[in-house]
Amino acid sequence: MIKVVIIGGGNVATHLADAFSKTNNVSLTQVYARNIEQIQHFKKFTSITNNIEQLKKADVYIIAVSDDAITEVSRKINLPDSIIAHTSGSVEMNAIKTNGSKGVFYLLQSFSKSKEVNFDTIPFCLEAENEKDLQLLETLAKTIGKNVYHINSEQRKRLHVAAVFVNNFTNHMYKIGADICNEHQVPFEVLQPLIKETAEKITKLNPEDAQTGPAKRNDQKTIQNHLALLNTEQQKIYKLITKSIQQNGEKL
Amino acid sequence: MIKVVIIGGGNVATHLADAFSKTNNVSLTQVYARNIEQIQHFKKFTSITNNIEQLKKADVYIIAVSDDAITEVSRKINLPDSIIAHTSGSVEMNAIKTNGSKGVFYLLQSFSKSKEVNFDTIPFCLEAENEKDLQLLETLAKTIGKNVYHINSEQRKRLHVAAVFVNNFTNHMYKIGADICNEHQVPFEVLQPLIKETAEKITKLNPEDAQTGPAKRNDQKTIQNHLALLNTEQQKIYKLITKSIQQNGEKL
Ligand SMILES: NC(=O)c1ccc[n+]([C@@H]2O[C@H](COP(=O)([O-])OP(=O)(O)OC[C@H]3O[C@@H](n4cnc5c(N)ncnc54)[C@H](OP(=O)(O)O)[C@@H]3O)[C@@H](O)[C@H]2O)c1
Ligand SMILES: NC(=O)c1ccc[n+]([C@@H]2O[C@H](COP(=O)([O-])OP(=O)(O)OC[C@H]3O[C@@H](n4cnc5c(N)ncnc54)[C@H](OP(=O)(O)O)[C@@H]3O)[C@@H](O)[C@H]2O)c1
Repeated sequence: MIKVVIIGGGNVATHLADAFSKTNNVSLTQVYARNIEQIQHFKKFTSITNNIEQLKKADVYIIAVSDDAITEVSRKINLPDSIIAHTSGSVEMNAIKTNGSKGVFYLLQSFSKSKEVNFDTIPFCLEAENEKDLQLLETLAKTIGKNVYHINSEQRKRLHVAAVFVNNFTNHMYKIGADICNEHQVPFEVLQPLIKETAEKITKLNPEDAQTGPAKRNDQKTIQNHLALLNTEQQKIYKLITKSIQQNGEKL
Repeated sequence: MIKVVIIGGGNVATHLADAFSKTNNVSLTQVYARNIEQIQHFKKFTSITNNIEQLKKADVYIIAVSDDAITEVSRKINLPDSIIAHTSGSVEMNAIKTNGSKGVFYLLQSFSKSKEVNFDTIPFCLEAENEKDLQLLETLAKTIGKNVYHINSEQRKRLHVAAVFVNNFTNHMYKIGADICNEHQVPFEVLQPLIKETAEKITKLNPEDAQTGPAKRNDQKTIQNHLALLNTEQQKIYKLITKSIQQNGEKL
């Protein structure tokens, strides 16, 4: 039985504490938040505290606080026989300052308290200082999830940038598509099936092979027609991404 | 019973002829292709021909040939009591030259012969010269599909550009994400759940409200960290899209 303490009362802490409280192979020993109101509902399942000096003994301490507070909070958890892991995608493992073992327990998904979470589909990106700790974190992850990856701090930084492209920047492509539709009284929902298909296609093909369209075909007539329909900002984006798609073609 | 003739032997023609041959309320009267080999398999269901002078009488002729050939092919179908409709997203209805009625029967989806098609999820974008014809095309569309929209030529042009953003350009964001992962031995599949979630989110929120991330938060520290990890081309795209996301924020 792995003993876990969750540090934090925000989105990630709440979902993790909730999930661990429901599994059999983990003992959720305690939940800490500086504002105890945030974690009142865990009182039924476990001990709660707002005093970091009074943490109970556990195998793993998961620090799910704001990125900027990770170092500060970790300094207060000095337990040589435990793993102290943070949950951030963009903070290095060594930002943890403790005489315990350091680790990372990063879930690549966006969380909000109100939104239900399906841990089965979430990638758990784990890092630790040694193989034994990594195995323990993996065992812990598998009590609530399925997809476990060993990702070191350098890789995690890259993953975080890659996530900006596939999530935030993709969403901005949707935004521009929606703007164009709205300006011409076309319901955006017309594009939804295509959006879904585009996302599904790359589960079978790699994105380079999945590419189609005027840029890939270098169909200058269509490209010029399209540019004439766009505003200056949209044109800049259209031109730059078209060029980037074509450069990839040339590298082949 | 609506009588339909399909003109063409390519991706779209094949899937349409196939779907119409299976429905009850449509009589697939004939399939034409200049290369008869392309349509041999329809012989079991209907008349086939490679002689455009010998088209049978029908209510609707669907011209599913290459964009550049639509005008030329339409000139040969002069039937004043029929609708002659093309299937292109980027060609105006008036590119059809005929003494019949003009129409458009555009399916917003990407087709390839080998890939099965679920017509239930495809948006049918219809246009006609008058209300009566539009109704007939709508009735026809609903024999095989569910989502029917009336989209005029101006709107369709815009929809086509919007589709480039949400499909081709989004796919390029996936490509850059995959490149970053590959360079650092991170399996691209780690990003798949996030990609799926991003596409699903905008079925409930509009893309502007769905946006998160460093650009939206104007988190300059993270933005600078990210830029330092990218190559020159990726940096250009990162900067331009970040700026564009932030401009939308300011307009609020
Ligand atoms: N949200 C996501 O989608 C997501 C996804 C993956 C990873 N992460 C990572 O998970 C971590 C937590 O994110 P979150 O979204 O759960 O954040 P959140 O909802 O903003 O919650 C942050 C928590 O940290 C607490 N906190 C902040 N400074 C503190 C300090 N100095 N001492 C003690 N507690 C402090 C906050 O308490 P107060 O409320 O009292 O300020 C709050 O309980 C971050 O490292 C984040 O990068 C988040
Ligand atoms: N594929 C898609 O994803 C998609 C999606 C929506 C709309 N569309 C539109 O649907 C139409 C057809 O596209 P597609 O993908 O089915 O094209 P395709 O697979 O390339 O097939 C084009 C067909 O047109 C025939 N053709 C070309 N020039 C001709 C001519 N002068 N006379 C007679 N036949 C001619 C070709 O015959 P040969 O093989 O003998 O050249 C072929 O049978 C286009 O307007 C396209 O924009 C396509």
